Amino acid sequence: MRQQMDVNSDMGESFGNWVMGNDAALLPLVTTANVACGFHAGDPVTLLRTVRLAKQNGVVVGAHPGLPDLLGFGRRAMKISPEDAYAYVVYQVGALQATLAVEGMRLHHVKPHGAFYSVLKAEKDLAEAVAEALALLSPEPMLYWPAPTDSALPQAVRKRGGRVVGEIYVDLDYAPDCSLIIQRTKHCLDVAKATAQVRRYIDTGEVLAQDGTAVSLDAESVCVHGDGPNAVDVARAVRRTLEESGCLAEPVVARAA
Amino acid sequence: MRQQMDVNSDMGESFGNWVMGNDAALLPLVTTANVACGFHAGDPVTLLRTVRLAKQNGVVVGAHPGLPDLLGFGRRAMKISPEDAYAYVVYQVGALQATLAVEGMRLHHVKPHGAFYSVLKAEKDLAEAVAEALALLSPEPMLYWPAPTDSALPQAVRKRGGRVVGEIYVDLDYAPDCSLIIQRTKHCLDVAKATAQVRRYIDTGEVLAQDGTAVSLDAESVCVHGDGPNAVDVARAVRRTLEESGCLAEPVVARAA
Amino acid sequence: MRQQMDVNSDMGESFGNWVMGNDAALLPLVTTANVACGFHAGDPVTLLRTVRLAKQNGVVVGAHPGLPDLLGFGRRAMKISPEDAYAYVVYQVGALQATLAVEGMRLHHVKPHGAFYSVLKAEKDLAEAVAEALALLSPEPMLYWPAPTDSALPQAVRKRGGRVVGEIYVDLDYAPDCSLIIQRTKHCLDVAKATAQVRRYIDTGEVLAQDGTAVSLDAESVCVHGDGPNAVDVARAVRRTLEESGCLAEPVVARAA
Amino acid sequence: MRQQMDVNSDMGESFGNWVMGNDAALLPLVTTANVACGFHAGDPVTLLRTVRLAKQNGVVVGAHPGLPDLLGFGRRAMKISPEDAYAYVVYQVGALQATLAVEGMRLHHVKPHGAFYSVLKAEKDLAEAVAEALALLSPEPMLYWPAPTDSALPQAVRKRGGRVVGEIYVDLDYAPDCSLIIQRTKHCLDVAKATAQVRRYIDTGEVLAQDGTAVSLDAESVCVHGDGPNAVDVARAVRRTLEESGCLAEPVVARAA
Repeated sequence: MRQQMDVNSDMGESFGNWVMGNDAALLPLVTTANVACGFHAGDPVTLLRTVRLAKQNGVVVGAHPGLPDLLGFGRRAMKISPEDAYAYVVYQVGALQATLAVEGMRLHHVKPHGAFYSVLKAEKDLAEAVAEALALLSPEPMLYWPAPTDSALPQAVRKRGGRVVGEIYVDLDYAPDCSLIIQRTKHCLDVAKATAQVRRYIDTGEVLAQDGTAVSLDAESVCVHGDGPNAVDVARAVRRTLEESGCLAEPVVARAA
Repeated sequence: MRQQMDVNSDMGESFGNWVMGNDAALLPLVTTANVACGFHAGDPVTLLRTVRLAKQNGVVVGAHPGLPDLLGFGRRAMKISPEDAYAYVVYQVGALQATLAVEGMRLHHVKPHGAFYSVLKAEKDLAEAVAEALALLSPEPMLYWPAPTDSALPQAVRKRGGRVVGEIYVDLDYAPDCSLIIQRTKHCLDVAKATAQVRRYIDTGEVLAQDGTAVSLDAESVCVHGDGPNAVDVARAVRRTLEESGCLAEPVVARAA
Repeated sequence: MRQQMDVNSDMGESFGNWVMGNDAALLPLVTTANVACGFHAGDPVTLLRTVRLAKQNGVVVGAHPGLPDLLGFGRRAMKISPEDAYAYVVYQVGALQATLAVEGMRLHHVKPHGAFYSVLKAEKDLAEAVAEALALLSPEPMLYWPAPTDSALPQAVRKRGGRVVGEIYVDLDYAPDCSLIIQRTKHCLDVAKATAQVRRYIDTGEVLAQDGTAVSLDAESVCVHGDGPNAVDVARAVRRTLEESGCLAEPVVARAA
Repeated sequence: MRQQMDVNSDMGESFGNWVMGNDAALLPLVTTANVACGFHAGDPVTLLRTVRLAKQNGVVVGAHPGLPDLLGFGRRAMKISPEDAYAYVVYQVGALQATLAVEGMRLHHVKPHGAFYSVLKAEKDLAEAVAEALALLSPEPMLYWPAPTDSALPQAVRKRGGRVVGEIYVDLDYAPDCSLIIQRTKHCLDVAKATAQVRRYIDTGEVLAQDGTAVSLDAESVCVHGDGPNAVDVARAVRRTLEESGCLAEPVVARAA
């Protein structure tokens, strides 16, 4: 049985006057926040306000870099080069690091967003470039990645001595091969199902795939999405389930420097 | 007589496939570079390439943040709030700091660009916000500013214990009140006039205003622009003049931390 | 007593994945829609969907062009040139005209947004440039403008033989000099007050200023904003008031070509 | 032997202060211009200036729409939907149509740019969407397309009764299967080779592939690129070759409406 789990959520995905999600309501329910960095969502003022809100809630902050496509919310694959991928990570993570620095905080982790995640899952040359960037950004951030963490980027990160934190998703379905089934439109989530998934994982280290198969995953964090209509309900249910199971909700701690 | 002068130039002002200036030719002629950070010009790959080129040339790098207006090259005044100004500086400087960090370099200074410079010259509340951001960005960078450095931002920076480096401009004309006369279109510069202006400044600490008045200025750096048609000739002439005058071309050294 | 009033609202102000307002609920309640054109809000897909939705509701469509500032939602003054203003109107109105054309519709009017409205109210050279653009865009669109319509752009439009349609605002307060008091944050509107304002205007041609003064205005349209929390309630109340007062809700008809 | 050829070139690919190509020097040498519409390059003022310059030179104007990726100059494949493709064409072509309208001109043709061309070459659902848009934009524009014109978009355009104009490229190499070999970096072009290619085509209707094979193509226009270092020399040589071969340089004339 797991004694401790991190709960993470994507945050800071508003842009200018357009609001997305309900960060203020979600922040008390998570232990780590993945903050958008301005390429797929977020802007300098939103970054700043999100970091301050996280600080007030005692939530640690990671970077959520995306492809440069505000119009497509970073969800459209783009054919970028390894040099692009490297530079996009350095730029976005750097912008967030400075936002954290002026608030006396440090970067906790990095978690690629949307189609950036997808290309880094599959394309080795892009993954190598990004892993190289992460290794050079000091202090070296952890990589958050949906379990199983055996695709291109997590492998490239581990090769350089970096730490990879596996995540389970309670608001997405798993295919029998452990891959996540991503829906385009955000519908209301089944809180009972999410709760059962969390409880099962804490007890057994397994999640239930769509076809009923039990799938074993190595994860230290639960990801709850912030942009579904009942995201706050799901997060609250996850936290309650952790508590009832005697599992501590705590951010993953980086190795000693 | 001045024993030492810094020579700075704006760099990295290309964007994607569009090239501006001739950084590779200018870098061997300057001692510090003000690198655009992606708001008025520059993009993550351009930042990276410019920083690497500066490193190869032994040139120290400062940030050249601008207003978020690529279309107007950051030269159009925009009515932004103090929160905007603060966040725009943190974001842009942070992106450059990370780009420097992955190359083993540190930020040398900050110099606001175009219309961002103009609003920070005049508007106290914006200047206070930016000075606050600069003081919190660690290690604290110097502010580069056209002499005389008695307007809103340099005052706000000094109030917080920050260091302000005055600049003279040899490719712009001075009005009798020491203000710079900024031309919209880039024409060929008068190399002889620029040379004479530099020599006069080194010898006397004065520049000649458009009306023939000698104006005393307190400056440690000469700014040469990179985007005029004969920018490289001007920079070369400035360097030769410094050499002939026995004045060392060296970057300004920050106070010990 | 007025026999007929147009009811207009700003629409299509979503951007990519970010939703603003509730166009589907508002469209059955208005007679004309001012559709954002992609500079301060809107994007090609949003334009298309908004035009189709308007068509389904029998609502005529005007252009709502803004300054090129998505980040600031077009609400920050920018120092643009007359050439900029001319070209920004041609580009945005043209994009909307084509979107209407593929749906078999025609442009009904043009109504500048936010800070673009503000600069065109005051600056004559920009107003002349925009009026020139409007006169050349064929068929010549009407200008919608808050009454009284005696500022720079409506004057420049009338000078060229163009038609100006005055609007009253029931969700903003009037200063005693007839100028509108624009609030930054959107709060819930007082439906009773809005209703009273409409009824008074239909009966007397006057609105009540904040200080209680009755102000006479020449208007053919009522503007209801779409982005307040109870915007739909306000629009519904306005429509009911028109009905109860025996005033037809009809779009303004352009003069015969 | 061909009696008449059109000569087209991409134009208006500057953006704000960044200049690309030398439109003023190229315009006297071409008969039709493909003008960028603001997504991969171009902006409202650049569109306007380019259209005016074309008008002064008696050059007819087509639209050169691209993917929404200024940073990548529209040369990076993006995973867009048919609805996106449809709306992007309507928006961009509409913006150019209005720019032409205010100058008393009409749209001559449409030619997709870069990666937008590539996806429309291969993906049928996107091609159908774009052909539908083109058929509805009135008056129906011709499609310019590299010969052979048997890929997805030209087929979809012809299916709807639209006219497709084949082009030959004298500054790119042909593979033996007639496909164009596109180089990333712009190098100096071999003027003699380009001249020979044009002469061969006028005489025989064939071009020479890289491996020496003669390839028969059905084309009415020669495309010369504007962004190579010696683009103007190439265009001048093409025009001289046409003249010497007794082949008229004339824009393709649309069928009577």
